[in-house]
This record gives sequence, C-alpha cells and structure tokens, in this order.
Amino acid sequence: MKALLQSLTLFLVFFFPLVAFAISPLPSWNDGTSKQDIINFVTAVTDKSSSDYVDPRERIAVFDNDGTLWSEQPAYFQLYFAMDRVKAMATDHPEWKNQQPFKAVLDGDMKALAASGKKGLIELVMTTHAGMSTDEFTAIVLDWLQTAKHPTLNKPYTELVFKPMLELLNYLRANDFKTFIVSGGGIEFMRPWVEGVYGIPPEQVVGSSIVTKFEIRDGKPVLVREAKLNFIDDNVGKPVGINLHIGRRPIFAFGNSDGDLQMLQWTTLAGEGKRFAGIVHHTDREREFAYDKDSHMGRLDKALIEAVKHGWTVVDMKKEWNVIYP
Amino acid sequence: MKALLQSLTLFLVFFFPLVAFAISPLPSWNDGTSKQDIINFVTAVTDKSSSDYVDPRERIAVFDNDGTLWSEQPAYFQLYFAMDRVKAMATDHPEWKNQQPFKAVLDGDMKALAASGKKGLIELVMTTHAGMSTDEFTAIVLDWLQTAKHPTLNKPYTELVFKPMLELLNYLRANDFKTFIVSGGGIEFMRPWVEGVYGIPPEQVVGSSIVTKFEIRDGKPVLVREAKLNFIDDNVGKPVGINLHIGRRPIFAFGNSDGDLQMLQWTTLAGEGKRFAGIVHHTDREREFAYDKDSHMGRLDKALIEAVKHGWTVVDMKKEWNVIYP
Repeated sequence: MKALLQSLTLFLVFFFPLVAFAISPLPSWNDGTSKQDIINFVTAVTDKSSSDYVDPRERIAVFDNDGTLWSEQPAYFQLYFAMDRVKAMATDHPEWKNQQPFKAVLDGDMKALAASGKKGLIELVMTTHAGMSTDEFTAIVLDWLQTAKHPTLNKPYTELVFKPMLELLNYLRANDFKTFIVSGGGIEFMRPWVEGVYGIPPEQVVGSSIVTKFEIRDGKPVLVREAKLNFIDDNVGKPVGINLHIGRRPIFAFGNSDGDLQMLQWTTLAGEGKRFAGIVHHTDREREFAYDKDSHMGRLDKALIEAVKHGWTVVDMKKEWNVIYP
Repeated sequence: MKALLQSLTLFLVFFFPLVAFAISPLPSWNDGTSKQDIINFVTAVTDKSSSDYVDPRERIAVFDNDGTLWSEQPAYFQLYFAMDRVKAMATDHPEWKNQQPFKAVLDGDMKALAASGKKGLIELVMTTHAGMSTDEFTAIVLDWLQTAKHPTLNKPYTELVFKPMLELLNYLRANDFKTFIVSGGGIEFMRPWVEGVYGIPPEQVVGSSIVTKFEIRDGKPVLVREAKLNFIDDNVGKPVGINLHIGRRPIFAFGNSDGDLQMLQWTTLAGEGKRFAGIVHHTDREREFAYDKDSHMGRLDKALIEAVKHGWTVVDMKKEWNVIYP
C-alpha cells in the first residue's frame, strides 16, 4: 500500500504537469469554438495514425502582426515610431515647422496627418526609416522601444501583445510547428524585438521592406537603407512574400483584417491537405478596441465574409479570450 | 577479467562510432589547413568557456551553391535545364528554328549561344522559367532532374554534389548551426530538391528570383511566374539577400567565386565576433574541373586576392579532398 502511494505520488509529481498541459494548452482561451478548432486541427495533423498527419517539416504556421499578435489602434505602432522619430529629428530640421506632413506630426494634428494621404505617409516613413545603415536602424528601433509608450494605453508597445496568441505560438511550437510572422509592417522594424517577445527568430519574419545597398565604408561593409520601396507585404503581397521567404505553403494562418485575406486564401484554398485559417475579431471595447468593417486601420470586411463562406475560425476576442495582455 | 572484456566490448560497440566521429568529423577531408581551420572555428564558437562562444541562435552558416556545393562546369546546371526546356518546348514553337538564342540551343551551338550575350541568356531563362504557376514550375524541375544527365560527366546533376561539403553541412548542423544556401541561381530552381540532397529546407534558401503574382483561377489561388526579374542574388546582391531573408549576419560563409566576395566580406568584416570564410578552389582537372581567374563560369580572381589578405580558408580541392562526389 505504501509502495502504491509512493508510486502514485511519483506519478503525480512527474506527470501531472504534462497531463494538465495536455488537457489545457491554451489557458487564456475560454472553452469555445475557436479553442476547440485549434486543438482539433493540431491534434489531427500531429497524429501519425490520422489521414491528416503532416510531416513536421511541413508544419508552417504564419501570423500577421498588427492586430493579430499585438494591438494596432488608434494607429499602427510603426506610425507612432515614425512620428516619435520626426520629433527626435526635428531640431536638425527647422524647416519641418512649416512643411507637411512633418508639421502635422510636430503639432500632434492627426487630422492634418491623415489629410496628407498615402504620399504624406510614405514621405514620413522614408524620412525616418532610410538614410542610415541596417545596424543603425536596429539600434534606433530598440532604443525607441525602451522608452516609448502607447498614447492612450500608456504602456510600452511590446507589452501590448496578446497573451492568448503568445500561448498559441508556444502551443504550435511544442507541436513541432515552425512559426513565422507575415506582416505588412516593416521587416527591419520587427526583427530587433520579435525573437524576445514572440520567440520568432529574425529569419522567420516576412514583412514590407525598403531597398538596401551594399557599400564598403572605411574598409567596413555596411548595408545602407535607401528611401525607395522594395516590397509591400500586404494583400496580394502576402502569398508572394510567403513564397519568396518560406517556399512552402503554410498549413496554419492567422490574421485579423482584409490585408490578410489572400494569405488565408493561399493557405487554405490553393491545394490539398488539411488547413487552418483563423481571424482575430476585435470585439472588446472595454479591454482593447472594437472595430471591423469601418476601421481605417485593420479593416475587416471581405475577409469576414470569406471566413463564413469557408468555415474559417473567427475569434470573438471579448467572449473567447479571458485575458488580453500579459 | 571476462567482465572487463565485456565492458570493453560494450564500450567499443556503443561509443566507438561517437569517438570516431568526434576525432574525425570530416572523413572526406584530408588532414590539412582547411579541415583544421573548420574544426578550430566550430570548436571555438561552440565551447561555452571560450570567449568566442556563439549562442546557437546566432550560428548562421551560408553557402553558395554553384561551384561550392555542386559543380558548375562547363556551364551552370540551370543553363542546361533552360536548354533542355527549349528542346522540350520546341515542337510548340516552330519559329525557334530561325530565332536566336533558341536556334543556338536547338543546334547545340554553344558559341552562338554565348554570342547572344546577356540579353539572349535572359530571354532563354524568361521563356523557360516564366508563364506558369509556381507549382507547375516545381513539377517541371523535379521531372527534369529525374532524367537529365550532365553532358560530359554523364551523371544525374544531383549526384554531382561535393561529398566533403555534404559532410561539412552535417558537421555544422550537428553543432547547432542553421545552414542556408545563398546562391545566384534561381530560388525556385533550387528549392524542389535541396532539402533531399543537402538537408537544407526551402525556407533556408536565398536566391535570384523573377516576379510572381497572386491570382485566383477558377476559385483557386495560384502564384504565376512572370517574365520579369525580381532580384539578382549575386555579388553585392548576396549581403542584401542575406539581410532580407535571414536578418542576421552569418558567422560562417563558403563560396568559390568573385560572385561570393561581398558575402564573405559581409560575414567577416562588418562587425565584431569570430567569423569563418572559406573558398573552394577548383584545382582538380582529373576528378572535377580546374579553373579560377580566366573562367567565364565561377570566375575566382578578386576573392582569391582578398582571401590571402584576410586569411580566409582556401580549399585546394585536389590536395584537400580525398573524394569529390558521393
């Protein structure tokens, strides 16, 4: 009897954590459709006796970043970075006081900034993201993240990541998935911090980019960032970026907006084999933000219609996540 | 005594292979400078007590393909692929009989083909590599590899890979390096077979590319290959490609030609930390090919001068490799 008790104790000490994990791998997700969809999918593709089994090498999972892994309201965080850079650089540019879109940024006038349109935004990005080496840009991004805070939530940006999605990334990796970011955001803006925050290494980040140029400066090679667009990794660009960087069609994709539609289509509809597509629906005005088809940032309209049509998993943030931020 | 012998036998059976591997991880490399350079480097960066220790996540190794991992003479193998495609497609193109560069290919006239210059070669590549979906192109490449043979060595192309380099790739991976291809060759031409041949997955292949475009055809998403250059991953393009795809500066790089010079510079000279640069010098007329500064394919001139200057490892194929092909 004593031996039996000892065995039982040993069993509990050593195996209970594993059993608990096996029962509930996604603690921030309430029991419901989305959590069950995810677990069913992962169970099916990792079960060697299942006809849906997928070789670990093919277990590619792709995630949008803005609005999927971290917040994106009231504006994309990279836009706040650009605006903070304008403020930091303004002493060297007295002319910006009377020159749009810089004047709008310095005046904190978001309406005037929006009025400068796509042309104004591109000028803002080029001025703040180009003209330095890749190493210098990395240092600028990391330096900014140390001190910058979200304008309304008043927290460091890297704390505004979604805890349920961090758990999902870990759950997938624990099941031998390789997790990638496929974002419309700047590839070099994300790489300096995503490994620490999401556990996703730089070589598994796909994003928009500007042209870089190899030069030897004082005998030392550098890559210089030029004020010229290279690639827009959004909408129809996402499958192109996935193909260029990954070269395999994902089996699992998560997004939150119409900019992710083609990635979700490419993942689920382009060929054979079991696939998962998920959409984060921002329904939580209290804890985060509530927006979809009428939003300028992260508009979710067509992709929601397609989700219903194809039976994709739509996460009702308010109902299905018991916590938002870590 | 018997027990001792039994233990010894057990020891030998179980541990001798490991010991042997530890003593000689690169059996196709003769003892000499290059082998010792490689082992010294790997030992230094993997020894936690060494000041040169490198975290496994930063152990990025990059390899050129043509002339570094497989042969490239008398012409790049991808050129033979393009020429074989022209022959296969010729029945649908009777006009090619009188039209360069196709006539040269159909006549087997390499001089006339060379005379068509860069413009002719680009036309050849675009005609044979574009106008189909990415899936269709993959199938064409795999189909070709099944039957095609090297014009002078009369072997399938994937058998013309260098055994010493396969051992090096395995040795690095056994030491937690992540191995990448960074080639001037077509990224989609390499991806279908490099995982099986080199153990390098598609997502760790960087190469030249043409533009691809996302389309929905009969309700099914496809990526269509267009007759338009996207990126040339050669010379100054290699550091750019490395940065775009990998986002970390490699600690180990191997090439064989001037097209690899900037990759070797970027790896070794752009910052701090122990680095390795290696060059395969084709010196073996008997078993493979002998060429360097006067060759049209894989010219090795400036990079050899730089190698001496910076103390990079130059592999004398004839002396240092006891076997070439598997």
